Amino acid sequence: MTPQLRPVAPPHVLTIAGSDSGGGAGIQADIKTASALGCYGSSVITALTAQNTLGVQGVHVVPPEFVVEQLKSLFADDLVPSAAKLGMLASPETITALGAYLASLTSRPYLVLDPVMISTSGHELLAHSAADALLSDLLPLVDLVTPNIPEAGVLMGTRPSPTTLEDVIALARELHPALKGPALLLKGGHLPVSRDAVVKFIEKEKIEAVWLAPPPIAVIADYREVIGLPEEKPDVVVDVLLDGGITLFVGPCVDTSSTHGTGCTLSAALASCYALEASMANGDKAGAPRRISHDAVRRAIKYTQTAIATAPKLGRGHGPLNHGHCAMQRVIPAPSIHDPTPFTSYLIANASEWDAYVKHPFVIALGKGTLSHEAFAHYIAQDYHYLRHYARAHAAGAAKADDMATIRALADIALHVAKESEMHVEFCASFGITRAALEALPEAATTSAYGRYVLDVALSGDILDVLVAVLSCLIGYGEVGLWLRKQVAAGEAVLEGNPYRRWMEDYAGDDFIGAVRRGIATLEERVVREMPSAPKVERLVQIFAESTRLEKAFWQMGLDQSW
Amino acid sequence: MTPQLRPVAPPHVLTIAGSDSGGGAGIQADIKTASALGCYGSSVITALTAQNTLGVQGVHVVPPEFVVEQLKSLFADDLVPSAAKLGMLASPETITALGAYLASLTSRPYLVLDPVMISTSGHELLAHSAADALLSDLLPLVDLVTPNIPEAGVLMGTRPSPTTLEDVIALARELHPALKGPALLLKGGHLPVSRDAVVKFIEKEKIEAVWLAPPPIAVIADYREVIGLPEEKPDVVVDVLLDGGITLFVGPCVDTSSTHGTGCTLSAALASCYALEASMANGDKAGAPRRISHDAVRRAIKYTQTAIATAPKLGRGHGPLNHGHCAMQRVIPAPSIHDPTPFTSYLIANASEWDAYVKHPFVIALGKGTLSHEAFAHYIAQDYHYLRHYARAHAAGAAKADDMATIRALADIALHVAKESEMHVEFCASFGITRAALEALPEAATTSAYGRYVLDVALSGDILDVLVAVLSCLIGYGEVGLWLRKQVAAGEAVLEGNPYRRWMEDYAGDDFIGAVRRGIATLEERVVREMPSAPKVERLVQIFAESTRLEKAFWQMGLDQSW
Repeated sequence: MTPQLRPVAPPHVLTIAGSDSGGGAGIQADIKTASALGCYGSSVITALTAQNTLGVQGVHVVPPEFVVEQLKSLFADDLVPSAAKLGMLASPETITALGAYLASLTSRPYLVLDPVMISTSGHELLAHSAADALLSDLLPLVDLVTPNIPEAGVLMGTRPSPTTLEDVIALARELHPALKGPALLLKGGHLPVSRDAVVKFIEKEKIEAVWLAPPPIAVIADYREVIGLPEEKPDVVVDVLLDGGITLFVGPCVDTSSTHGTGCTLSAALASCYALEASMANGDKAGAPRRISHDAVRRAIKYTQTAIATAPKLGRGHGPLNHGHCAMQRVIPAPSIHDPTPFTSYLIANASEWDAYVKHPFVIALGKGTLSHEAFAHYIAQDYHYLRHYARAHAAGAAKADDMATIRALADIALHVAKESEMHVEFCASFGITRAALEALPEAATTSAYGRYVLDVALSGDILDVLVAVLSCLIGYGEVGLWLRKQVAAGEAVLEGNPYRRWMEDYAGDDFIGAVRRGIATLEERVVREMPSAPKVERLVQIFAESTRLEKAFWQMGLDQSW
Repeated sequence: MTPQLRPVAPPHVLTIAGSDSGGGAGIQADIKTASALGCYGSSVITALTAQNTLGVQGVHVVPPEFVVEQLKSLFADDLVPSAAKLGMLASPETITALGAYLASLTSRPYLVLDPVMISTSGHELLAHSAADALLSDLLPLVDLVTPNIPEAGVLMGTRPSPTTLEDVIALARELHPALKGPALLLKGGHLPVSRDAVVKFIEKEKIEAVWLAPPPIAVIADYREVIGLPEEKPDVVVDVLLDGGITLFVGPCVDTSSTHGTGCTLSAALASCYALEASMANGDKAGAPRRISHDAVRRAIKYTQTAIATAPKLGRGHGPLNHGHCAMQRVIPAPSIHDPTPFTSYLIANASEWDAYVKHPFVIALGKGTLSHEAFAHYIAQDYHYLRHYARAHAAGAAKADDMATIRALADIALHVAKESEMHVEFCASFGITRAALEALPEAATTSAYGRYVLDVALSGDILDVLVAVLSCLIGYGEVGLWLRKQVAAGEAVLEGNPYRRWMEDYAGDDFIGAVRRGIATLEERVVREMPSAPKVERLVQIFAESTRLEKAFWQMGLDQSW
């Protein structure tokens, strides 16, 4: 039941590329991409650029030997990546040095090469003459290569100008064998084609297609119109994968200037999605198949497309993508050996009345044995009524559960509470209040307020809401029990001759504290599983704070003997 | 009601620092930090290191003029950061060049300086002699400086060896005026002190303290023990902020080797938290106060501490932090002009029976007017019974809502459905089924299955569950209505003389399609507000897929006239 406390290392993805001072492309885009997809990102820098959304203003090429030195630090049996992408490689000398080093490795990471030759803004980032070095020294080592149409031309020594999907596929089929090894993903972003043309072509040629552009939905088209958006374009962009077979990835055509670093992002996403799959398949050990699945390709393209579609306008030229679109705020970190109960701690830290509740004057007087019989009798009789609602709240939770384990756990607590209430009956009997008189007693306002608040949450909320609504009572009484035991040890409370000794021993006893432990473990485990979002955590904090406030009021009601 | 479709640009945070090929420190840690905290990260690189968790194997210093060139690209009225952190500055010449450039700016970003002199692994990253350049050329321009204890010594030209909290505070008080301007955050990580000592000291000296280390909680201590963790250390680490006043930030003492890049991460987090606050205060415009709030400092320290505490073991030496601890997977991206209904689209894309539902043979025959009267009569009578449950589900949703707007919206739909059912009564009357006969008709199994499924979700789930459970019926009928209208236009369906013309016109009519639009907008808006986590989205997808499957079965029941 206890959640995993030792975090699992994420897959490690390396980028070998240039640095973009503007942060939108190069190793910066790659590290943002790897992080967003849940990988650990590292980088070997081949060149620095002084760059912004308008263009590249300067390049500082890193000496090839220092590129290799960076690689050596990583592969020195320390931070060995399971996948790497290669981007801007700056010079033929760097390509040759890289090729020699990568060829010397006994176990190469999965390699994705984005043949970056021209920046989105039009700057030549690699001399065309370097294509020879790429083809001879690097491509034979690479697993996947991702040129766009102009880059495919450079690799082939031609200037292709395809105008139809047929042309693009013919280009891919011509280029692939020339690469001598890697799978080819030819990116069709430069040539949008009509959806109908793609549908017809696929049917005619019997080619497999993965659709990322959703089919037209009439109610959504109507909604777009009503909120004032133009009709969705009937055009799509097609990326062609040749990996033995041929597969088309058909995405929506997004009209935007936020495309700076698109190629970097896609290749980093491909390396990351490969690494994630490999790590799931065999726990990141060597021997993963060196073939990227179509699902990983689909995820990488989808990630990149959403990053383009949700990008805010930044800069005056081609703005960067929104790399963080697939992340949202996680309020409660994973449990760790340093903090095994992050959610419980968070709730307590955000309940301003917690201390006033667990160290209430009622509790202190009870521990010293100086609490008046009348106050205790009033409290215990009202607590009997409260427990009825408390049991019902658990039963309501059980009624909402969708698995037998939860039904059993909550039904068990409802039963436990019903039994616990018998202790209250006995206490009341010792004060001369019969069971009939106890049952006939009206609820004090605070009892109704608290009992029915917990029940309302149980009826209107989900299981997590229920577990949190009942938590303050559960762990607060445990805290009081354990604290009073410490107070006894410190001479600040007494057991000998204390009329409330049984109460004190019950709530510090193994039975009750065992329930507290199970309650904390159940809750922490459920939070790890359900990952409540920030607004949901906010609601849970409110529920816990409110029930803590009402717990404090409950002691006060006892002390004041108020109705 | 429509969610924001044009994303707001995040605050921009620049790092001016070295590159760590291992990805755990330097600009890589800074970019990971800025991204994790929701900022846009860019970087000006001062030096490249070949580095891993065991040490720094090589350094390539970037020429100072190229450092300035990178800065110029950013500040060329393109991607101007609102805050920047300065880390490893490599050489006195770079410091002087940076100082001159930053001094020349008419509007400087908020500057946090982490005086990086020695790496966690012990490598000297800046000659001690460069301290003079820092003090004369850079510190007067800086807003906040964050040395640890040894670095404070280098800045003062001494070798302090504080042993108590008093010593550390005395050190901070001596260093602060020598810096000539910036606020000082002296990091006490090198000297853990006892919690009790801090409590006593604060009380005695009347110093403000922000506690990040939670107070001891008895039930949590008990829980730690039960799951086999050692007792929590009574030691804390204290960071001292001098910014006019003095404030202590008291954090837990985490025993771990995952501390590579801690200083980088904290200073990047401070710059990010400042930028986030400034952007909220004045929409990122100039004129934000150049003073970091204590809440921003608290958030930055907390972020860094959690990154240390939740780090997986990576590498053989001092491993990197877990920069992504405060992010979790966001399945549904923000609505954008390119995709204003991401949640609705996602549900439909993941309901495998969607097409079989909206283009069911029942619907096609109805559109052509060839559907038998008996089939339609059976369907419409059962739909009357279904609508009762459908109305109740909305009422149950209203009963769970915690705001008047939602109560009103759901109660309104319940009312609408009750009215819609009168159309069914009239249809049945036209087939010779009286109201009494209709009411007396038993529910077919599919009617019970579907109606009570929706009701169960409404009773056991939360508002989002309710909205999704009723969605398939709402938007599916709209889709059928609009599709049949298109089919009529294409000659594939007929209105003239079609006995079901009224039905077809009702579901393509303004009244019903208006409800569809409101339903989509309400749902999309609620998803943006509640940000359902991945497990929650998974549950919502299941609900939508199940109700879509049951809708399809409902048409089939009509066609088969089955019970």
